[in-house]
Amino acid sequence: MKLVTFKNPEGQSRAGWLTEDGVVDMQMISKGALPDDMLSFIDDHERYFSIIQDQSLHEAKPTYSLSEVKLLAPLPNPRSFRDYIGFEQHMLNASAKFGHKIGDAWYEMPIFYFTNHHAIYGPDDEIKRPSKETKLDIELEIAVIIGKKGKDIKAEEADEYIFGFTVFNDWTARAIQKKEMEVPLGPHKGKDFANAIGPCIVTRDEMNQYLREDGKFNLRMTAKINQSTICDGNYNTVYHTFAKMIERASENNVTLYPGDILGSGTVGWGSLIENNFEVHRPLEPGDVVELEIEGIGVLRNKVV
Amino acid sequence: MKLVTFKNPEGQSRAGWLTEDGVVDMQMISKGALPDDMLSFIDDHERYFSIIQDQSLHEAKPTYSLSEVKLLAPLPNPRSFRDYIGFEQHMLNASAKFGHKIGDAWYEMPIFYFTNHHAIYGPDDEIKRPSKETKLDIELEIAVIIGKKGKDIKAEEADEYIFGFTVFNDWTARAIQKKEMEVPLGPHKGKDFANAIGPCIVTRDEMNQYLREDGKFNLRMTAKINQSTICDGNYNTVYHTFAKMIERASENNVTLYPGDILGSGTVGWGSLIENNFEVHRPLEPGDVVELEIEGIGVLRNKVV
Repeated sequence: MKLVTFKNPEGQSRAGWLTEDGVVDMQMISKGALPDDMLSFIDDHERYFSIIQDQSLHEAKPTYSLSEVKLLAPLPNPRSFRDYIGFEQHMLNASAKFGHKIGDAWYEMPIFYFTNHHAIYGPDDEIKRPSKETKLDIELEIAVIIGKKGKDIKAEEADEYIFGFTVFNDWTARAIQKKEMEVPLGPHKGKDFANAIGPCIVTRDEMNQYLREDGKFNLRMTAKINQSTICDGNYNTVYHTFAKMIERASENNVTLYPGDILGSGTVGWGSLIENNFEVHRPLEPGDVVELEIEGIGVLRNKVV
Repeated sequence: MKLVTFKNPEGQSRAGWLTEDGVVDMQMISKGALPDDMLSFIDDHERYFSIIQDQSLHEAKPTYSLSEVKLLAPLPNPRSFRDYIGFEQHMLNASAKFGHKIGDAWYEMPIFYFTNHHAIYGPDDEIKRPSKETKLDIELEIAVIIGKKGKDIKAEEADEYIFGFTVFNDWTARAIQKKEMEVPLGPHKGKDFANAIGPCIVTRDEMNQYLREDGKFNLRMTAKINQSTICDGNYNTVYHTFAKMIERASENNVTLYPGDILGSGTVGWGSLIENNFEVHRPLEPGDVVELEIEGIGVLRNKVV
């Protein structure tokens, strides 16, 4: 299933799912048995999926056509947001540009930072360039949404903690980031102004058709700016899998909650700085960015 | 007022405030006009403070003696948690120990990272030492709790966004931290297992008696391990004030919410690593840590 949050024609936020040519309002179709927001759905999703199955609601006709609604961030209020560096190529590219020496630690464990879970943007939302920022950039990532509470989760059992997947654009202000990272607390103001996700959350069962035996998905990941392709990558080049990331996040008695998000890190060459801003100048108001991941869809945003 | 969250004799979590010799249950004393949890109180605190004032509830006799209740983290569910490095002495000490070169950026702006707002511990809670961690440490900080939603807040108007203050122990696994910071995303697993706050939240009006004209509080801050003093500092040695921190956090269209927490950073010499672990060996199960800040109280935790 491709789950979405959307604004209905009355301007209200609702939860539902995509059909071939429209959107089903899950609360309306279930006569109130299903909730009207995604976080509530995720919190009790096993029961809700049973209701959908029992009543064959997944076969329902769309409540609205896509042109009647506006898709919002599929989970507008994640409980937390960790972002990793899962791809070796991006790590090598980025550390070269920043002049950072990367230690063996990167290969030994998935490294992450907490980013701003209150700065969530969705499909077609406008992204405001930070004032005075001269090197606005994107990062093409896939994100996993946690579905089940747990701590000290082993990689082998991590799959059952995954609710679904979405496209993630980790908007980055490179000039701010470069300055603030002179102090080794990691990126923060360079990353806290916009985390865009969408257009939908694809459930784990549907996504697992792309899963290989090594725990990596075979998924094409592309980025376009003003319709020109600047990155054509694949998730299967990842070094640290989501299973390892979930294990690491929950290590040492740390609880993960339904609605927590984990970003994969940028696929190699999935940002402008990796290309020395040669494939495209830093982003400016008016630029349109489209990130596409096979099996999920296109996340489009415009810079203002 | 000194606001608290506590477990009543029936084992239920309640919100209230401290009196000289006990605790007032705010919901009970107000016959339901005040809420039973701190986050709800903060969300609508102007109205609730009016109710307290109008009915002279602050003069009420305690509902329970302190021995009848267990104090919990005063805000068990902050909406987010930023931690800064506000004290120059700590920055100099810590960067020397880690061998980090600190750039001018530290002096130009308050630098922070997002820490785990889901790993909150309160007074007398036991702190589990991460497995295999050989250098468990503390950090003596004061934290501010945001009371009002806002973005692009100027330092001059930051005071009105502050709800109150609490003692914060930023528990740190130095061995884990050292390893993971080989990759420049900042600390995460070294810091994500325990953020202890308490024993109460002192409201802004009460705390402002300690405020100097330069925006710094004159507040003694001490740390004891097994009753032996390892740090005796003062908040007035801070370089970046909370006003500047709030300005920085909310810059570039970033919204702060009621119930967000900002940590001051460690007061100089307020951790063991700064003293080369010479004033005390790394913490071990059984050790009792007491952080005290003038005007707020003592936050005590035991390592297990």
